[in-house]
Amino acid sequence: MANSRYEYVKAFEQPDIILPNTWIVVRIDGRGFHKLSARYEFKKPNDLRALDLMNAAAVEVLKDLPDLVIAYGVSDEYSFVFHPSCDLFERRGAKLVTTIVSTFTAHYIFLWGKFFPDMPLQSPYLPSFDGRAVVYPTTKNLRDYMSWRQVDCHINNLYNTTFWYMVQEGKMSNTDAEQELKGTVSSDKNEILFKRFGINYNNEKEIYKKGSVVFRQYQLEETKTGPESKVPQAQGEEESTAQEKISKTQQEKIRKQRRKAQVVVEHVDIIKDEFWERRPWILSGKPGKLPKGA
Amino acid sequence: MANSRYEYVKAFEQPDIILPNTWIVVRIDGRGFHKLSARYEFKKPNDLRALDLMNAAAVEVLKDLPDLVIAYGVSDEYSFVFHPSCDLFERRGAKLVTTIVSTFTAHYIFLWGKFFPDMPLQSPYLPSFDGRAVVYPTTKNLRDYMSWRQVDCHINNLYNTTFWYMVQEGKMSNTDAEQELKGTVSSDKNEILFKRFGINYNNEKEIYKKGSVVFRQYQLEETKTGPESKVPQAQGEEESTAQEKISKTQQEKIRKQRRKAQVVVEHVDIIKDEFWERRPWILSGKPGKLPKGA
Amino acid sequence: MANSRYEYVKAFEQPDIILPNTWIVVRIDGRGFHKLSARYEFKKPNDLRALDLMNAAAVEVLKDLPDLVIAYGVSDEYSFVFHPSCDLFERRGAKLVTTIVSTFTAHYIFLWGKFFPDMPLQSPYLPSFDGRAVVYPTTKNLRDYMSWRQVDCHINNLYNTTFWYMVQEGKMSNTDAEQELKGTVSSDKNEILFKRFGINYNNEKEIYKKGSVVFRQYQLEETKTGPESKVPQAQGEEESTAQEKISKTQQEKIRKQRRKAQVVVEHVDIIKDEFWERRPWILSGKPGKLPKGA
Amino acid sequence: MANSRYEYVKAFEQPDIILPNTWIVVRIDGRGFHKLSARYEFKKPNDLRALDLMNAAAVEVLKDLPDLVIAYGVSDEYSFVFHPSCDLFERRGAKLVTTIVSTFTAHYIFLWGKFFPDMPLQSPYLPSFDGRAVVYPTTKNLRDYMSWRQVDCHINNLYNTTFWYMVQEGKMSNTDAEQELKGTVSSDKNEILFKRFGINYNNEKEIYKKGSVVFRQYQLEETKTGPESKVPQAQGEEESTAQEKISKTQQEKIRKQRRKAQVVVEHVDIIKDEFWERRPWILSGKPGKLPKGA
Repeated sequence: MANSRYEYVKAFEQPDIILPNTWIVVRIDGRGFHKLSARYEFKKPNDLRALDLMNAAAVEVLKDLPDLVIAYGVSDEYSFVFHPSCDLFERRGAKLVTTIVSTFTAHYIFLWGKFFPDMPLQSPYLPSFDGRAVVYPTTKNLRDYMSWRQVDCHINNLYNTTFWYMVQEGKMSNTDAEQELKGTVSSDKNEILFKRFGINYNNEKEIYKKGSVVFRQYQLEETKTGPESKVPQAQGEEESTAQEKISKTQQEKIRKQRRKAQVVVEHVDIIKDEFWERRPWILSGKPGKLPKGA
Repeated sequence: MANSRYEYVKAFEQPDIILPNTWIVVRIDGRGFHKLSARYEFKKPNDLRALDLMNAAAVEVLKDLPDLVIAYGVSDEYSFVFHPSCDLFERRGAKLVTTIVSTFTAHYIFLWGKFFPDMPLQSPYLPSFDGRAVVYPTTKNLRDYMSWRQVDCHINNLYNTTFWYMVQEGKMSNTDAEQELKGTVSSDKNEILFKRFGINYNNEKEIYKKGSVVFRQYQLEETKTGPESKVPQAQGEEESTAQEKISKTQQEKIRKQRRKAQVVVEHVDIIKDEFWERRPWILSGKPGKLPKGA
Repeated sequence: MANSRYEYVKAFEQPDIILPNTWIVVRIDGRGFHKLSARYEFKKPNDLRALDLMNAAAVEVLKDLPDLVIAYGVSDEYSFVFHPSCDLFERRGAKLVTTIVSTFTAHYIFLWGKFFPDMPLQSPYLPSFDGRAVVYPTTKNLRDYMSWRQVDCHINNLYNTTFWYMVQEGKMSNTDAEQELKGTVSSDKNEILFKRFGINYNNEKEIYKKGSVVFRQYQLEETKTGPESKVPQAQGEEESTAQEKISKTQQEKIRKQRRKAQVVVEHVDIIKDEFWERRPWILSGKPGKLPKGA
Repeated sequence: MANSRYEYVKAFEQPDIILPNTWIVVRIDGRGFHKLSARYEFKKPNDLRALDLMNAAAVEVLKDLPDLVIAYGVSDEYSFVFHPSCDLFERRGAKLVTTIVSTFTAHYIFLWGKFFPDMPLQSPYLPSFDGRAVVYPTTKNLRDYMSWRQVDCHINNLYNTTFWYMVQEGKMSNTDAEQELKGTVSSDKNEILFKRFGINYNNEKEIYKKGSVVFRQYQLEETKTGPESKVPQAQGEEESTAQEKISKTQQEKIRKQRRKAQVVVEHVDIIKDEFWERRPWILSGKPGKLPKGA
């Protein structure tokens, strides 16, 4: 039973190599998490256990894939970022995306019991995620993408916080709350929270307001100030030729170095320059110095 | 904090709609299963628990996605097939592939303990899968793809069975066994098995020799014979216009009908016509009759 | 001055191989022909010289590229069709499309003076064309594409013929004619033509009503009638495996055979089966018999 | 005769929007110019008429498409460059490529008689060109692409010049000349030219040694020197957000401004920074000042 007469079907596979020297963002989203969060009784507007579980799974993905330089999560979505110099899986799009989706899912399911000890998963209602890759040519575009997600987090969280206070504490119907919030701006919502419920939105948990930023921890740089301050550019934009020549061996060496760094989760502003200036290894793609005593 | 200045980044998402009226095969593969099978002590050449776990996860995927018409699994790979008339997720490639990869992974992890009760998963060494979509324009191409995988299963299994008998029973070193098998044809391997170990390869388990075929069960058709026998064509090839007009409502109705059918796993020949002739609903994409008493 | 430090830029070229075993339609359209037809005083609603020039250029394209099996032209657009078995330029999309666009343009410019002897081209106002490839998986889809273009030809020509009679003979303003035709159906337009201008639309030139079909001429088959009549399928759908194995040498031989056939232009119905039944070489991709005495 | 039953075929067209904020290079190549140059007796190693014709056609393409910022030509190839901020044809790849190929071909055919007055084109042996788009994310990548083409020009021209002197003046056979040149470096070829034929390669025509650079002419900037000198970055890399918001109206205004500038052909070094520093409008995408008295 020779296979040669069927092997022609291999020619139907189409290549999907992602353009070199570009930022690759793989964004994953929970499938049907609206229903799922009801089934497993997630708390509204934020369920800390669910967010911690998302973050724990994301940390494992970063540990597993040293080529990732940063990730950002909010609600049931997570964005994972590969550096322009990344050549993992020869930059095959489907391979990069499915590897992240599958690794994330595996850890999410595996860790569920740790975060929801009293709420076991019931088959077939298992959490799952879809994903896609988006490509950004410049560091500015990448930063704008990250800012977009964090602003979205803020806007949604302010809305949801207000809405659920109105419903849970204010005993309004969903429809009435929705109706009243229609057309309001941030200051209106802040005022509702403060006047009616005595809530200062600024005192809400950072994880709810800022989302979660996951990255490798090295020694922070001093914050530079003044006009000479400069956000580091992607390696690729300054010296891509050199970088193109990084050998497989060197790539593997860099991966090993990265594995030594601790992967941390922080809930901080990533819109302003400071975050990126103090952590130049993220945008440069060059490992920093391990913190003393680490 | 308005988001409008960042929203332009959405324009970088590129569409990936799969060509209409074509068969879509999503093939997933275990990531690093060579190491993984060593860590969790999978039996050689075949570990029935591992195969049953693959099949159980595949069955859940077919239950979850009624648009799938058939799947075929061997070793740590599985191919899932969408019909040409499928419009799930508007045929967005990444969405189709990641949904299957994630759903499969979720059930694989969730079911692990049932199939490996004495061998718990150890983080971070969790099983995961990558995947890709391949598109086939005609039913013949699709059948040739399926045949290709099943012939591959046969070739690999005959080799592995012989190799591991030589090593495990014959006490040969891996290198010696490999060396002796180099250049042998099927009959040589059959003879080694029979002469040295008294093994008739034909009596090996069908699941090892044929792999696993997963599909919805309806009433089988009589086997036709003679020249008028005809393998059903894909709906799309005969009446695609009509099919193009299937409304969303009708699609949803067909999905509901499909959910009623039982999803079964069989270890049978899918190279010859008979399998397809007796189960015309697979290639036609039209639900068959539910078996009596079901 | 070594080039090696720059050669990495070659890696940015992305493959664009068209899916095997599918029909490839390359459609080209005149760029800004509205203005151009005014500048060179094309007659309304149809300029026979302009159509004959389009057809002459299309004939040269078919002569130059024996892999093309048929082409269909109407107004300033032309669709060129490659057979599923075509492997010209390894099916690279951009190469196929640009070769057709450039060859067509070259002949169009070169032949201009023959068809417009009193109206020389004036630089920079030269005719040019853009193009794109569309892929069809089945013969039915391809035939529906061809039908779509021919129905479009009919609809536009009936409208334009009526409109220009109303303007040129009926002395109506463009706006008034447009207004009156809004919402009319075919029979209304036929009636306007007949009642007001004594024109029987059926007697209009076939080239205007049907467009132009370009193909290689072999001996016609007898028209089959009755239920056993069958439109030939694409080779690929019946025996693609075999076809996949056509060697480069055989491909070149087939090309030579095809070059011997005469390329003809006809203005006939391509919606009904008859056209295709009598010329089975078009859909089968196998050269027919040269006509006697040719 | 309604068209609705066929219109579904439109859904088979697949989008091919090029990634925003990237450099687009459309490279065209003469089809079969080896044979063609023999048929029309092009001079070896360089035919000035043929190069001038290529340049004249390229100038017309830049005049026709103000979105192009620069082009570079050598032998029978030409590279046309769109700025990252370009939104012509919504950045549809096939449309951009075919428009350039067709416009170039049209002018090439139209202008032939001017450059080859004694050698009329003979149908069907007409010149034609194929083309493709390549995308570069950063200005450095784009500059490296341009350098790659110019170094290639140098390497090929030195080889060809030496080879043809050996054959035409030295009366060597093609094979012998080829054999002797195998493995030689630049200095060897320079020496052959000088010692045997008294030719100083440096005195060869710049158009042969450097190729042809086509761009819009504005007032040159002073050459900056010293460490503060800086090659301008693409607009997109510094302020892409703003640029994203350039309205259609503004785009059209910029196009009009560009049309006023003269398109020039120069044979100069584009590898070093100086060319780009003195003509900042090319990389910035912002029109410069028209030269005084222009």
